[in-house]
Amino acid sequence: MAEKKRIVVIGGSAAGPKAAARAKRLAPDAEVTIIQKAPEMSMASCGYPYFVGGVFNNRNALLSTPYGEVRDPHFFVNTKGIKARTETEVTAIDRAARTVRCRDLNSGAVDELPYDTLIIATGAKPRKPPVPGIDLDGVTTLQSMRDADFLRRIRDEGTIKKAVVIGGGLIGIETCEALQLSGIDITVIEMLPQILMFLDWELAKVLENHVRSKAANVITDVKLAGFLGENGQLKAVKLENGTELPCELAVLAIGVIPNIELAQATGLEIGETGGILVNEYMQTSDPNIYAVGDCVELVHRITGKKTRAPFGDLANLEGRVAGENAALGNCVTFPGTIHTGICKVFDFNAGSTGLSESRARQEGYQNIVTVINASLDKPEFMGAKLLISKMVVDGDSGRILGVQCAGPGDVGKQISMAAMAILGKLTVADVVNADLPYAPPFSLAIDHFIATAHLMENKLKGRLNGIGAVELKKELDAGNKPFLLDVRTPGEFEMMRIGIGETLIPIGDLRNRLGDLPQDKDREIVCYCKISLRGYEAAVLLNAAGWNNVKVLEGGVMAWPYGREK
Amino acid sequence: MAEKKRIVVIGGSAAGPKAAARAKRLAPDAEVTIIQKAPEMSMASCGYPYFVGGVFNNRNALLSTPYGEVRDPHFFVNTKGIKARTETEVTAIDRAARTVRCRDLNSGAVDELPYDTLIIATGAKPRKPPVPGIDLDGVTTLQSMRDADFLRRIRDEGTIKKAVVIGGGLIGIETCEALQLSGIDITVIEMLPQILMFLDWELAKVLENHVRSKAANVITDVKLAGFLGENGQLKAVKLENGTELPCELAVLAIGVIPNIELAQATGLEIGETGGILVNEYMQTSDPNIYAVGDCVELVHRITGKKTRAPFGDLANLEGRVAGENAALGNCVTFPGTIHTGICKVFDFNAGSTGLSESRARQEGYQNIVTVINASLDKPEFMGAKLLISKMVVDGDSGRILGVQCAGPGDVGKQISMAAMAILGKLTVADVVNADLPYAPPFSLAIDHFIATAHLMENKLKGRLNGIGAVELKKELDAGNKPFLLDVRTPGEFEMMRIGIGETLIPIGDLRNRLGDLPQDKDREIVCYCKISLRGYEAAVLLNAAGWNNVKVLEGGVMAWPYGREK
Repeated sequence: MAEKKRIVVIGGSAAGPKAAARAKRLAPDAEVTIIQKAPEMSMASCGYPYFVGGVFNNRNALLSTPYGEVRDPHFFVNTKGIKARTETEVTAIDRAARTVRCRDLNSGAVDELPYDTLIIATGAKPRKPPVPGIDLDGVTTLQSMRDADFLRRIRDEGTIKKAVVIGGGLIGIETCEALQLSGIDITVIEMLPQILMFLDWELAKVLENHVRSKAANVITDVKLAGFLGENGQLKAVKLENGTELPCELAVLAIGVIPNIELAQATGLEIGETGGILVNEYMQTSDPNIYAVGDCVELVHRITGKKTRAPFGDLANLEGRVAGENAALGNCVTFPGTIHTGICKVFDFNAGSTGLSESRARQEGYQNIVTVINASLDKPEFMGAKLLISKMVVDGDSGRILGVQCAGPGDVGKQISMAAMAILGKLTVADVVNADLPYAPPFSLAIDHFIATAHLMENKLKGRLNGIGAVELKKELDAGNKPFLLDVRTPGEFEMMRIGIGETLIPIGDLRNRLGDLPQDKDREIVCYCKISLRGYEAAVLLNAAGWNNVKVLEGGVMAWPYGREK
Repeated sequence: MAEKKRIVVIGGSAAGPKAAARAKRLAPDAEVTIIQKAPEMSMASCGYPYFVGGVFNNRNALLSTPYGEVRDPHFFVNTKGIKARTETEVTAIDRAARTVRCRDLNSGAVDELPYDTLIIATGAKPRKPPVPGIDLDGVTTLQSMRDADFLRRIRDEGTIKKAVVIGGGLIGIETCEALQLSGIDITVIEMLPQILMFLDWELAKVLENHVRSKAANVITDVKLAGFLGENGQLKAVKLENGTELPCELAVLAIGVIPNIELAQATGLEIGETGGILVNEYMQTSDPNIYAVGDCVELVHRITGKKTRAPFGDLANLEGRVAGENAALGNCVTFPGTIHTGICKVFDFNAGSTGLSESRARQEGYQNIVTVINASLDKPEFMGAKLLISKMVVDGDSGRILGVQCAGPGDVGKQISMAAMAILGKLTVADVVNADLPYAPPFSLAIDHFIATAHLMENKLKGRLNGIGAVELKKELDAGNKPFLLDVRTPGEFEMMRIGIGETLIPIGDLRNRLGDLPQDKDREIVCYCKISLRGYEAAVLLNAAGWNNVKVLEGGVMAWPYGREK
């Protein structure tokens, strides 16, 4: 037999070690080496916010196997038979000679490491805006173990009182929660009109309201001008509108940029979205080099277009595919992403899979149908919590393009199911009679996901004339005032109400109080209740009684994203 | 226009009211009437065990809408425009005259009610064995509101000390938990070799052990001989083996029998499984009559064969389909069941969807591949809980036939995803790179479901030579003793171990201690750890070092269904 195959992996965070481990398992004779710049390896980086926020205190938990062994070079060689060099930077790839140049960050020593197959897993770095003051002490990101240690120390010392988080995306909101749990006054600033861009505006607004209810301030639609300091120390964040937000800490969370410099310098093709170009085998334009994780671009499985998806779960799956191909030759493929994501937002959860409505419109879908459903996640008597979902469907085929879900309820289950439905290319008709696990501790008899599909089916068949909160608000702002009918009980109305000039007629009284409605049968009437189930009953009743322009406010009071009177 | 269409629904529990409500919504001019034998309507009957067990105390919660209105005839007429007659029995159906004969259970008055379309939703009744003493006071079922009231009173009075639950199925186990929470000494008896027949034996055994750990006794493989009493009062349950179990309460939970007498008497066709025969429109052999809920038989969507599936969620979905067809003529179909079910078992959950291994074998599948995976449901540092899954796959096509899951972890999410994957006819290859929602509060970076698929893929490709606990136990009992290798840490071994003559070599030491292994390279070696992830590493390592017959004990120590030394 020939010499042992040499597989070199650049990057020791998520995708790299997974690729290395998979390759070594499938080709036990191969020499597998990981080169890692940071002192740590296999960091559970998605866990940083929970370490910073004090959800747990054992730093090693971020670096350990489930049975408590720290994943250091010693572990890799003993358990996996893989050589790992930490605090070592790869400074160049020589594709002709098939070597990588390594520099020991402590000693400065340089050596050339030969490879037969190379796997690039260089990850991504936090985006930093070109504004004044970015290098002040107190301006940080939350991307490395070092960042996590820095922020955790701030929590433990308890001296910092005010912080600003720049960016209202997933990591920004997780960081906001972590710091707020540390007793710090937080302001989140976001240059877009909403936080959590993987959600459509009306769901993002529900979460924004929840963040505010936790005493964290949120300012949308503002641009960062720079950081103000004294003696090199951050004192305030300055916005383009002139506002200064005094703070001792600012965390940048405005996204990540793929680390493609090494790949670019050695002439590998870079894709249209700025990630390293790979084919379905996770192979770059050089057949001896694979690339995986946050540094690559992927195929979006719904649109077929290229996209980036820097998520820890995908990094692992990509690493597994590349590791197998590196070991055995191209034999397995990675199909791409549907942009599934989830995050905890204080007592709420927020998740999305597939296309949001705004994304679907950008992608050019012409016949998009959406519906919002608010319901409990299980029976009231079992300690139910609220879920608000939005489903996005291609009206031509009935295919589910995307599902978003927010609320204190079991969002993880909803999005997991929806992701599986989208992967299976299921239509609304496939989901309306799905056979799901039902028992009162787990769900409603008609699960929230099926109920959402039922509403969508009614809408597709023209039986539910829904109006979204955004559309209704536009009408109201334009001075068109439909007759607004709240059909809840007086008790509910007293506790909480929107306050847009609505009339209260409880659903049980409606049949006997039709005289209290506008007698012009063409007048627009918008019905709703807490979640618009009774609102739907009311609309059916009014249609039957001859009114011609009856709509249901989707999601009812609970999904109303604007301020309420009560 | 002609006269108003008359739709009559027999049965007011789950499927009936749903069918009635759907029909009335889609045909607001129709006259819709529900005839219900019980005093209550729309009972959340799956919630009875939680009311009995004191999880909640408000009886009306079982009978109310989410906004607290009791679903009585008053509610049905006011909110839904549906007439409901409770405490009224339908004693006959005259298909020629299109009438049903109703008897008022209070006054005894009889009348004939005409229909254009009839919907039969007569449900099912608890199976009662033909044994002596069945009518003693203290022998009950948990199927009606009356049963629930009776058992709840027992809880509240606190005088009964010992009870026996007959039947270890879903309802038996839920009842066991409810009564145990009421402070009653419980014994569950089951005539089959295991409880919870929707699971394969080895998973059922894990749950049986858990039930026992909660101080409830479980006896399998025993037959009920009868009930012994004094003065009409239950004193003991007698088994066929002669054992007498003293008790003051016995709850029968050995399944249900569809109520088909009315349908049979009027000449409707009954299916091979004993339920009313319906087509895909939920229509009986008489085109003017639909049937829904626990009284019908359905199509199994995987095998294509007829089956019964008396579940509350399906009853609602079937009712919705029949209601629409009754209102508008046949336009929607019900596709059948994949036998998805779930239940809470004290601190554990247990669920299943699709075919179990034993069911798949009964159905004649020839090339069945199974795998067991035990892992945490999220990272240890986020308060993880254990999940044990078994996946059943058609080895020819790779199609997922079934998934079972048990443990304290998030079983509901696992089974929901699996159900959606089975509905989408997904293969293992489709699931290995699924894009699921990942963040540490919700799952592992590689979700348990994907990890199960990874193990299965390794097995299908011949890379994982797994052995199930049942098979290993058989080998050991037959006197074949493989070399048993536990690769956990000494600390773990000290805390908990199987105790079948295993040798402990921690995975990190294995490379340096190959000399401690049998030097006969053909000797069978079985590796394992807590969940067999390290066990798999060890097998890869030993294979690479030249051993030829290395197996991994699937699910490791956690899925071991027999007694442990520690």
